[in-house]
Amino acid sequence: VKSGPRDEAAWIRHIARLWGPSGADVDLGDDGCVLPPGRYALSTDTLVEGVDFERAWAPPRAIGHKALAANLADLAAMGSRPRFFLLTLGIPTVLPDAFVEDLLHGMHALSVSEGLGLCGGDLTATPGPIVIGITVVGEQALPALRRCGGRPGDPLYLSGPLGAPAEALRLFKGGRALLAFGPAGPPGEPGAALLDRFFRPPSQTELGLFLAGSGFAGACIDVSDGLGRDLARLCEASSCGAEVEASLTPSYFPEGGEAGPDALRRALAGGEEHVLLFSARPGGEGALGRAPDAPRRIGRLTDGKERVLVWPDGTREELPAQGFDHFAP
Amino acid sequence: VKSGPRDEAAWIRHIARLWGPSGADVDLGDDGCVLPPGRYALSTDTLVEGVDFERAWAPPRAIGHKALAANLADLAAMGSRPRFFLLTLGIPTVLPDAFVEDLLHGMHALSVSEGLGLCGGDLTATPGPIVIGITVVGEQALPALRRCGGRPGDPLYLSGPLGAPAEALRLFKGGRALLAFGPAGPPGEPGAALLDRFFRPPSQTELGLFLAGSGFAGACIDVSDGLGRDLARLCEASSCGAEVEASLTPSYFPEGGEAGPDALRRALAGGEEHVLLFSARPGGEGALGRAPDAPRRIGRLTDGKERVLVWPDGTREELPAQGFDHFAP
Repeated sequence: VKSGPRDEAAWIRHIARLWGPSGADVDLGDDGCVLPPGRYALSTDTLVEGVDFERAWAPPRAIGHKALAANLADLAAMGSRPRFFLLTLGIPTVLPDAFVEDLLHGMHALSVSEGLGLCGGDLTATPGPIVIGITVVGEQALPALRRCGGRPGDPLYLSGPLGAPAEALRLFKGGRALLAFGPAGPPGEPGAALLDRFFRPPSQTELGLFLAGSGFAGACIDVSDGLGRDLARLCEASSCGAEVEASLTPSYFPEGGEAGPDALRRALAGGEEHVLLFSARPGGEGALGRAPDAPRRIGRLTDGKERVLVWPDGTREELPAQGFDHFAP
Repeated sequence: VKSGPRDEAAWIRHIARLWGPSGADVDLGDDGCVLPPGRYALSTDTLVEGVDFERAWAPPRAIGHKALAANLADLAAMGSRPRFFLLTLGIPTVLPDAFVEDLLHGMHALSVSEGLGLCGGDLTATPGPIVIGITVVGEQALPALRRCGGRPGDPLYLSGPLGAPAEALRLFKGGRALLAFGPAGPPGEPGAALLDRFFRPPSQTELGLFLAGSGFAGACIDVSDGLGRDLARLCEASSCGAEVEASLTPSYFPEGGEAGPDALRRALAGGEEHVLLFSARPGGEGALGRAPDAPRRIGRLTDGKERVLVWPDGTREELPAQGFDHFAP
């Protein structure tokens, strides 16, 4: 019995019970909602300084880019095409104008390449940390990808290797910083690509649209809080368990670092990935071979509730719903 | 020439120039936006502890109520019917669960009475102040009321007296607190109604819908940052000036306080009103007599750019674009 303060999932359950269904076509509990008659998908995500990033880690352009990119990953996980966004900025009174300008420029560059316009927002000066709240609006021309669309037996796919953002986070906390951030990609110095990846998750928009249009997609979720945690969400919504094969799961290993079981376990618990985890209907393997970003099969959904990690020697271990929880003690 | 940091209006201009038109039917620079093909209106507004409220001022229910009410006023100013909202909560790690529960209950009660469902959101723990970010979605069945719909000669209306929130704010800052907040309205102790008004702006939803359907509405804006400032916004958007008659402008005067010119000037500069300021087409006076909340005529739009306050003796003075600016030094 839990007697301490609520964790994030408990707060979400509390809120869902309090309000009940909203009448939206896709409602609370997914990566976003879809408004009737099914034309627009909405999603919202906020970055808070001191929680999601520190000013010292990277140029403001990188921070602006990432704030929008994290929201776009949610739209991608719905199979929605980005169209508009609303921006709420909480700006500390002591922050220089140039910092905010650069943050906006980083966000603007990404909005141009992703084809979405800014249609509203709110500005507020705060005594506290920088707060970047974004609501994205996507055109939902295709049936939305849902977390609940998986069935036992469906193969599970992942659209990119795991672990780099967690490793970058470790380096940032140890004092490293990304020195430049621009359209040309990461600067040349050693290790910069890893730090850059934290602020520049690869766009999943085309993959999301491909999946929604493929007829083979099952469940889909943006991996934002660690594969362990987000797989648990997908499995819960789909009433399934899952088997993830260690040998199939692409993950990042730091240069000279340990490529063994612990490194993979860390990668599976690391957040901020913003790649897509999805299941496909049996028979979809051929179509998925033509998908953007070459998603890799990493396992399958199963009957029951267990989520297990299977090692090459056949050893099975529980895959914990670990990852980032804002409310973890 | 301004050399200091940007104020709020300058930031909004900067952002509007950087992004340009979004393609929305109603875009940046109004109380909300309307998405093509004109069915949904969106607006977003954030309350930050230490800026918009203090924990000590009122029960958490009052804070939750007000956060949603402020957003609903923006939808009302568009003539939009509230349908959905997305909620972002930044919760300080030290805040007791009961506080958040009560805040949610206050918000929930208002959402039920206004008929809108919660369809999404984001939770985040923060080291800083409480942040309540809301994006509201309204059904825009009628053509949206705009800030730009005014013409010289049109009479100007206001839907409620001004000044009580500013006076309540002064009392809160002096150490007063609202001790209870519930569906039955303000508690009975002397002065509580005034404090309650700060957290419970009267709903403008029915008035907004009436105006949008009347065929007589011109420009419309939610008075959130002071009549002086919001009238300036309406006039700028409508390329008009305005005359406001002191004798016609309903305002709150504290008991035993000064009902003279300075009290009215303070009322005209006070924020957090969340009543509607709007212009009507000539000939609409009769229809407006049947409007909800009995809006009062307070003056008229004029040729030119000046906004003036006219006293009963004919004296005219500039009505400054004063009011709350988050970025004021």
